[in-house]
Amino acid sequence: MSFAETAVESTPHIGVLPSGPRGTIADVEGVTAGHCTLDEGAVQTGVTVIRPHRGDPFLNKVPAAASVINGFGKSIGLVQVEELGVLETPIALTNTFGVAAVAQAQIRAAIHANPQIGREWSTVNPLVFECNDGYLNDIQALAVSEQHFTVACEAAGVDVASGSVGAGRGMSCFDLKGGIGNASRVVDVAGQRYTVGALVLANFGRLPMLTIDGTPLGRVLAERAAKTAAQPEQGSIIMIVATDAPLDARQLKRLSLRAAAGLARTGSVYGHGSGDIALAFSTAYTVPQESDFVALPPVLADARLDPLFRACADSVEQAIVDALWRATSVTGRDSHQRLSLRDTAPDLAQLLK
Amino acid sequence: MSFAETAVESTPHIGVLPSGPRGTIADVEGVTAGHCTLDEGAVQTGVTVIRPHRGDPFLNKVPAAASVINGFGKSIGLVQVEELGVLETPIALTNTFGVAAVAQAQIRAAIHANPQIGREWSTVNPLVFECNDGYLNDIQALAVSEQHFTVACEAAGVDVASGSVGAGRGMSCFDLKGGIGNASRVVDVAGQRYTVGALVLANFGRLPMLTIDGTPLGRVLAERAAKTAAQPEQGSIIMIVATDAPLDARQLKRLSLRAAAGLARTGSVYGHGSGDIALAFSTAYTVPQESDFVALPPVLADARLDPLFRACADSVEQAIVDALWRATSVTGRDSHQRLSLRDTAPDLAQLLK
Amino acid sequence: MSFAETAVESTPHIGVLPSGPRGTIADVEGVTAGHCTLDEGAVQTGVTVIRPHRGDPFLNKVPAAASVINGFGKSIGLVQVEELGVLETPIALTNTFGVAAVAQAQIRAAIHANPQIGREWSTVNPLVFECNDGYLNDIQALAVSEQHFTVACEAAGVDVASGSVGAGRGMSCFDLKGGIGNASRVVDVAGQRYTVGALVLANFGRLPMLTIDGTPLGRVLAERAAKTAAQPEQGSIIMIVATDAPLDARQLKRLSLRAAAGLARTGSVYGHGSGDIALAFSTAYTVPQESDFVALPPVLADARLDPLFRACADSVEQAIVDALWRATSVTGRDSHQRLSLRDTAPDLAQLLK
Amino acid sequence: MSFAETAVESTPHIGVLPSGPRGTIADVEGVTAGHCTLDEGAVQTGVTVIRPHRGDPFLNKVPAAASVINGFGKSIGLVQVEELGVLETPIALTNTFGVAAVAQAQIRAAIHANPQIGREWSTVNPLVFECNDGYLNDIQALAVSEQHFTVACEAAGVDVASGSVGAGRGMSCFDLKGGIGNASRVVDVAGQRYTVGALVLANFGRLPMLTIDGTPLGRVLAERAAKTAAQPEQGSIIMIVATDAPLDARQLKRLSLRAAAGLARTGSVYGHGSGDIALAFSTAYTVPQESDFVALPPVLADARLDPLFRACADSVEQAIVDALWRATSVTGRDSHQRLSLRDTAPDLAQLLK
Repeated sequence: MSFAETAVESTPHIGVLPSGPRGTIADVEGVTAGHCTLDEGAVQTGVTVIRPHRGDPFLNKVPAAASVINGFGKSIGLVQVEELGVLETPIALTNTFGVAAVAQAQIRAAIHANPQIGREWSTVNPLVFECNDGYLNDIQALAVSEQHFTVACEAAGVDVASGSVGAGRGMSCFDLKGGIGNASRVVDVAGQRYTVGALVLANFGRLPMLTIDGTPLGRVLAERAAKTAAQPEQGSIIMIVATDAPLDARQLKRLSLRAAAGLARTGSVYGHGSGDIALAFSTAYTVPQESDFVALPPVLADARLDPLFRACADSVEQAIVDALWRATSVTGRDSHQRLSLRDTAPDLAQLLK
Repeated sequence: MSFAETAVESTPHIGVLPSGPRGTIADVEGVTAGHCTLDEGAVQTGVTVIRPHRGDPFLNKVPAAASVINGFGKSIGLVQVEELGVLETPIALTNTFGVAAVAQAQIRAAIHANPQIGREWSTVNPLVFECNDGYLNDIQALAVSEQHFTVACEAAGVDVASGSVGAGRGMSCFDLKGGIGNASRVVDVAGQRYTVGALVLANFGRLPMLTIDGTPLGRVLAERAAKTAAQPEQGSIIMIVATDAPLDARQLKRLSLRAAAGLARTGSVYGHGSGDIALAFSTAYTVPQESDFVALPPVLADARLDPLFRACADSVEQAIVDALWRATSVTGRDSHQRLSLRDTAPDLAQLLK
Repeated sequence: MSFAETAVESTPHIGVLPSGPRGTIADVEGVTAGHCTLDEGAVQTGVTVIRPHRGDPFLNKVPAAASVINGFGKSIGLVQVEELGVLETPIALTNTFGVAAVAQAQIRAAIHANPQIGREWSTVNPLVFECNDGYLNDIQALAVSEQHFTVACEAAGVDVASGSVGAGRGMSCFDLKGGIGNASRVVDVAGQRYTVGALVLANFGRLPMLTIDGTPLGRVLAERAAKTAAQPEQGSIIMIVATDAPLDARQLKRLSLRAAAGLARTGSVYGHGSGDIALAFSTAYTVPQESDFVALPPVLADARLDPLFRACADSVEQAIVDALWRATSVTGRDSHQRLSLRDTAPDLAQLLK
Repeated sequence: MSFAETAVESTPHIGVLPSGPRGTIADVEGVTAGHCTLDEGAVQTGVTVIRPHRGDPFLNKVPAAASVINGFGKSIGLVQVEELGVLETPIALTNTFGVAAVAQAQIRAAIHANPQIGREWSTVNPLVFECNDGYLNDIQALAVSEQHFTVACEAAGVDVASGSVGAGRGMSCFDLKGGIGNASRVVDVAGQRYTVGALVLANFGRLPMLTIDGTPLGRVLAERAAKTAAQPEQGSIIMIVATDAPLDARQLKRLSLRAAAGLARTGSVYGHGSGDIALAFSTAYTVPQESDFVALPPVLADARLDPLFRACADSVEQAIVDALWRATSVTGRDSHQRLSLRDTAPDLAQLLK
C-alpha cells in the first residue's frame, strides 16, 4: 500500500495536539453515541443520539452551554440550556422536520424513567438539533418517528460511526456527501490531562469554499466540475463538544464558541441559510434534580483555558473533515445524488500532498 | 345593579391609556386568534393560535422579536426569530408536552400551503410556546394532537375569548384559575394613532404575591385561605404583543421587554420555575419570502417609543388580570381543582375598592 | 410625634421580607460604600464607590453579572464582566461625563496596588456606571476628576448615606429629587440565612408614573402640579445588588434581572432614554488573580433561588423609594431646582395612608 | 525585480473576491481614517480614528452593531450600540489605558460641535476600542491624552496607512510586530455593487499559530526560533467593518460576526486573554438626532447576504495579514523589541510559495 493510499485511509490529523485513542467523542470517558439510519429509497435520513453519561441525565443533569453562531435553525431546548446551564436529556440530532417526533420521544422516555415528571416535579426539556437534508431526503415525508430515537438510544456505545449514518444519512457538505464526523484531542492543563471530543452533523458549504487543513481543495474540485459560482448555503452544522475538564456553564459557553474557529478553517463564513450551532458539555460533575446545593469540583481558571479552546477548534475542524472522509455516496429522492469526497476525487492523496 | 357588581363585570382598566374597542389583541387590525379547548375529565388543556395577518405568514413574514425574561421554558422557534427578526407561521400556544404535536402541525400546514418548502425552498420555522398545565391537566397523556392546531387556526377571528379556553384551559395563576387574557391600548405618537394588543397565557405566581392595580389582594386572600408560605413557582407566562406601529425587529425586541414591567406589577418576580417569555410583532409591513430587497415604511424614531412601551406594560398587566377575571373554575386530573378569582372572592368588588 | 410623622421619618418597608439591621447594602457582610459629593453652585454631582470586600478586588476577584434592561447608557466594564463573570475593581457610580475620569482613577489605583498590571500581568477592567444629572448639574463642566474617586474610596464604610449624596447629588427621579437609595432583605434558604442588599442611583421616571408600594402617588402629585403630560425619560437607574449567598455568575445574572421587577413596581416601563442596568455580586467566595483552579463553595440549587429573587425585587423597589425619601431639595445650574418628595408633598403620610 | 520580491511588496490577496482600488477601509465611499502615533522611547502607542462619514455623526447617526467574540476587553460604548443600533461619534482605537482619555476627548468634541448635548439634549455615547500594547509600550505611563484623539481626527483621510502606526504603534501579533491592517472587497449583490472595507488593530496570537492564506507559516518560524510552546494570549483584536450596502442594525450584527471567520483562518482560536471584538457599520443611510420617523432605503434581503459575509471574512483575514506585512520593527520599553514579519523571515516569498 502506497503512502498516498494510507493517507487517504484515515481522516487527516489537523493541528499539533494529539488525538484520543478512538478519535471520536467517546474518547471523553462516559460519553456514548448511537445512530438509527433510514435508507429506504427517497427516505435518506435518521437520528443520532449522544448520551453524556451512563446514568439518567434528568436525575443527574449535565453542565452545558451553547453558542448560536448563525441562528437559521429549528432546534428545541436551547432556551432552557441558556438559562440554567444544564441539559437533562440525551442530545438528539435529526432532520429539520424530525425535531417534533424526536422531542416527543425524549419526553416520553423521560416520563417513563421518572413518572414524577409533569406530576410532583416540573416538566423536562428535550434537546434536539437538526439540519435540513431535503436535497437527498424526502423531508416532506416526515419519516422520522419516535421509535427511531429509541433505536438510536439503544445503539449508543463507545464505537461511534462517522459518515452517511444516523442523522447524517441525508446530509450534504460542500456539495459533497456530508454527515456525521468525529474527532478528539488530549491536552495537559494545570498538571492534569483532559480530553475534548467533537461530534458534528455536517451539512453546510459550497464546493468552491472547501478547505482541508489549509489547502483550498474546493477550488480545484469546483474547477474540474465547472462549478464556478457559489450558490447560497441552505445547509447547517451542529457541533457537539464534550470534555472531562471541570468547567462551569459560563466557561462551557466560551468553549462552545471556539467551534466557530474550527468551522471557519474549513471554508465556512457562517452563511445566511446555515444554522450553525455549537453545544459544549462537561462530564466532570453533574447537577442533581433534587438538592439544596450543587457541589462543583474546583473548576479550571479561565486563564488556563487556551489549550481546551485549541482542542475544541482542532477537533471540530477535524470532525468536519472526518464527515467528508467517512461518508459514502448516497442517492435519494428524485434520483438526487451526492458523491462522497473519495468518489469525487479519486486522486485525493495527490491533491492534498 | 350596584357599582360594585358593575366593577366586577368587566376586567378593571389599568393605567391611564385608553383601550381599543374590543380590549383584545384583535384590536390590532388584521390580527386574529382562535382556541381549541380540550375538556375531557383529566384532560384539561388546549391550543391557542394567533394569526398576525390574514395572508400566508410564510410568503409574507412578519417582523418580530422576543425577550426571554426567564428561560425555564420549552418553546420552539425562538432561535431563528432572534437571528432573522421575523416569524413565518402563526403563533401557537399549548401545554409543555403539546409543543411537538403542534410544531408538527405547523410544519404540515406550511408544506400544504407551500409545497416548495423542503424542496426548492428551505424549511419552515414553527413557532410554538408553552406553559405547564400539569396541575389540572393529565399532561403525561400527551393529549394535544395535530388536529387541535388546525381547529384553533380555523377558529381564529376577531372575537377572542379570554379565560379557561384554548391553551389556557388547564392553566393556574396565583394558585387561582388562570388562562388566556387579553387587553389593548391606543396611543398617539408623532401625530399618528397606534394600537398595542396583548394576549397572555397566564400560568404563574403564588397567591400571596397577587397584586391587582397596586392592591396586594393576594395577601388578603392568602390569609383567608391560611396559605401563608409561598411555594416555589412552577408556572410560566407567555406574553404576545401585537402592534400596528412601524417598528423594526430591534425595536420590537425593546418593546417586548416592556412586558416584563407589566408582569412585575402583578406581583411576579420572574420566579425560577416560571418560563416568562414575551414576543412582539408588528403588522405595519411584511418581509417577502422571495425578494432581493425589503422595503420598510419609515419606522418610528427610538426616542418616540415611550408611549408604546407604556401601552405594552399596561396591556400586559391588564391581560393578566383579564385572565383571572374571565377564568371559570376548573376541575381536572386526580380531582385537582382551581377556583376562579370570582369563586374565591365573591366580595371582589369590596376588596378592590 | 404623630403616627404620620413617624411614618415619614423612615423609608416605608416594602413587602413582607424583613430588612437587615442597617437597611443598606452594607448589611451584606464585608460590603462598604462611600461618597464624594460636589456641591459648588452649578456643579452638583459626585462619585459613589462600593467595595465588595475589604481586600484588593484585583487579587481576589468577585463573582458578578449584569442585566442590561435598557442599554441607553455609557458605562464601562460590562463587556468583560459578561465574559468572565467577575469584577476586579470597586464599583464606581458617577455622572455620564465623569466615567472617563473615574475609570482613569480606577486604573491608576489598581496599578498602584499591583505594579505588575500592564507588565507581567494583563490589564485591569475598571467598572464605572453612570446616570445623566445634566438637569441640576453643569455636566458640560466635566467637574468630576480622579481625586473624587479616591475620596469616595477612602470614605467607604458600613454607614452608607442615602439621598442627595455622592453620585446621587444631581440626580432627578420622577421629576423629584432623586439620588442614592439603599435597602436590604434577609431570607432563609435551604436552612441558611442570607442577606441581599441593594444600592441604587435613581435618576429616572416622570412624576405621573410614581408608584409607592402600589399607591399611584405620582398621579395625585402631578394633578396638583398640573403636570398632566408625561415627557420622555432622559434619566437612568443603576441598581447594584450584593448578596452573601453562594451563587455563580450565571445565577447572579438571573438575580440581577429581578431588579427589573422592583423597578417596574415603582412605575417605570424602562423608558427609551433611561439606561437601566442592574449588577449583582456575591461575597461568598472570590476568584484569585493567579491560580490554576477556582474552588467554589457549594452553590445554591437554582430551584432554591426564589426567596433571593423576591429579596432582590423588594430591596431594589425599596431602595428607589429610599432615594426619594432621603433626598433633600437641590438647586443647581441655571437655577434649576428639584424639590424633594418631602418638600413636594408635606402631607405625604396622609397621601400614603 | 523577481517574482518573489514582487510578492512580498504588497500584502497577498486572500480569496477570490476582488479588492477595492485602495485596499483599505476608505474604499467605502465617505469613510476616512487617521492616526496619531506616539514614538518616544518607552512610549510606543497611539490613537486611530475612523470617521464613518464626512458630517457630524451625532446629528446623523450611523447604523452599526457589534459582535463580542471574546469579551476580555475594556472598550466603552458597546452597551448603547447594542440597544440602539447606531454609533454617534467617530470610532476610536487606542491602548487599554488610553480609553478614558480618548472617551473624554470624544465627549468634549461632541459638546463643542453640539452645545445642546447635556443640556436640552441627552448625552453622547463615546465609542472607544482598545488592545493592550504593554509589551512594547510603557502602558503604565498613561501617555495617551485628549489631544492625541484630536490629532488623529484631523489626520483622517482616504489615504489610510497600515502597520506600526496610530493605535497600532505598540501592538504585537503572533509574537511579531502587529498593528493596523486594511483590506477591502467589492461584491455584486442583487444587481448592485457594494464595497466592504476592514480596518483591524491586530494584537493577538502566538507565533506557532500563524497561518497565512492556509500556509502554517508560524510553525516554520517558531521552529526556527525554537519557540515551541505556545504561551497564553494576552493580546486582542479590534475589527472594524464598513460597507455601503443597505443593512439594518440586526443585519450588521450578522455581518460583524463573520469577522470571526476571517480571524480564525489566521490561526486564532479566540484565546482567553484576547479581547476579540468586531463592529460593522453601514454608510447607506443615517439616523437623524431629531426626527419622529427614520426612513431607511430598501435593505438587502437576508437571503442575499452571503457575498457580503464572504467579503467580510476575506477582508478581515487580509487586513490581519496586512498588519503583519506593513509593520516595521519597533523597540520600546525596557528594550523590548518586536521584529516585523519581514525582518523575521527575509525569505518570506520562498516560504509562502
